[in-house]
Amino acid sequence: MESSPLEEHRPGLLPWFIAATQILGLAAVVMTGVWMGHYEGGFAWDGGSLQFNVHPLCMVVGMIFLYGDSILVYRVFKHENKTTVKILHTAIHLIGLVATIIGLVAVFQYHSAQNIPNMYSLHSWCGLITVILFCTQWVLGLVFFLFPGVAYSFRASYRPLHVFFGLALFILAIGTCLLGITEKLLFSISDTYSKFAPAGVMANVLGLVLVGFGLTVGYVVTRSEWKRAASPEEEALSMHFKTLTERDSPDSAQGS
Amino acid sequence: MESSPLEEHRPGLLPWFIAATQILGLAAVVMTGVWMGHYEGGFAWDGGSLQFNVHPLCMVVGMIFLYGDSILVYRVFKHENKTTVKILHTAIHLIGLVATIIGLVAVFQYHSAQNIPNMYSLHSWCGLITVILFCTQWVLGLVFFLFPGVAYSFRASYRPLHVFFGLALFILAIGTCLLGITEKLLFSISDTYSKFAPAGVMANVLGLVLVGFGLTVGYVVTRSEWKRAASPEEEALSMHFKTLTERDSPDSAQGS
Repeated sequence: MESSPLEEHRPGLLPWFIAATQILGLAAVVMTGVWMGHYEGGFAWDGGSLQFNVHPLCMVVGMIFLYGDSILVYRVFKHENKTTVKILHTAIHLIGLVATIIGLVAVFQYHSAQNIPNMYSLHSWCGLITVILFCTQWVLGLVFFLFPGVAYSFRASYRPLHVFFGLALFILAIGTCLLGITEKLLFSISDTYSKFAPAGVMANVLGLVLVGFGLTVGYVVTRSEWKRAASPEEEALSMHFKTLTERDSPDSAQGS
Repeated sequence: MESSPLEEHRPGLLPWFIAATQILGLAAVVMTGVWMGHYEGGFAWDGGSLQFNVHPLCMVVGMIFLYGDSILVYRVFKHENKTTVKILHTAIHLIGLVATIIGLVAVFQYHSAQNIPNMYSLHSWCGLITVILFCTQWVLGLVFFLFPGVAYSFRASYRPLHVFFGLALFILAIGTCLLGITEKLLFSISDTYSKFAPAGVMANVLGLVLVGFGLTVGYVVTRSEWKRAASPEEEALSMHFKTLTERDSPDSAQGS
């Protein structure tokens, strides 16, 4: 069996994939820092272009790196107590949200100080939608999964939606970053970007690293072999729902 | 049970979601056509800017609409013969690939005629990677799933990778389109984009429609209730692999 492609799916590879996510995620943060800190002149909080530079760094930290890591806790700590892991997931998202808010204040204050219009670009539209839906998900997650007294049936029926939209918004956040990279390059180095200026090449590579982070996080969380084992209670509930759903479904009599 | 969130998952809603994908996908094609045909002056094949306009339309038809529909055939025809559906999946991807090649020839010929450098932007990097990996997936899919004589064990072990990378490349294709929209707007209407020029607003909405198409296709293909039922042969094989994998796994003794 040693040379079979099946080997690629064995749970023993999970730590290597987790390591890959962390290398790519940290590389994205460092590259954003170097791009803004070195090629774009550094950071400040004075309404000038150096204040804008705070925006990409905070967004990559908050909406990409911490967001991805918050999703990954369910795989990294797959054998720990579920409530503890849920609290960790919520807390990392909250820290990410703080970074996100700082990043948004940075860019809106900069636009205001420089009389640059807000919210006209596809980047800004995608970004605002992502942040609003992210906050909605966070609140719904808190209410459904951490508040005591919510019926297990509600938790079980919201769970797949929370998982789907959580991953979808993470992907949308990465797409929004790629749009931001393209906008920033065409605003800042439009003359030299097509001549493969170092800042342009580095920002393009940053874009690919962000895609790589999204791919590895997405792969880790969607592999069925690496999912958390359901607790006996969840298992029983899932069977109960399956019965209910199949009984209600108009397709159930059709077979395949 | 009628007001329970569970109702949202019943298989009976599948046709409505399929309808939504088609409305969004066709809207994206029409809006790209109107943007290029009306706001950007129309289409030609003369090496000028009207030849460039062929590029976005062909890419949205080939790498977005037909790609999405090719994925959806496994849900739309979930009760049909699997080999027939596989051939349909392969054929739609092939037609999409023809549109994609026309779209790529259009832009490379235009760049060449106008002395515009190639392959410097993040859009071009993401696009080239997507198309190369798409062709690789297509060939691997043909060899593994349609050539007779390939062992079922190989098919079963490649299948989750094909599904994961198929969806990942579809998402990357959408991200690449969003980058293309942003590039085109900043090249063509950089003066009026920030003043909410109609072409800019329409192109932004096109971006959101593309995201909506990706979201609905992604939702339809990942909902466990809407997946094809495994044939008895696949079912038996899956159990066999589960046994093998669990025996090999260092985690199997740990429980949760």
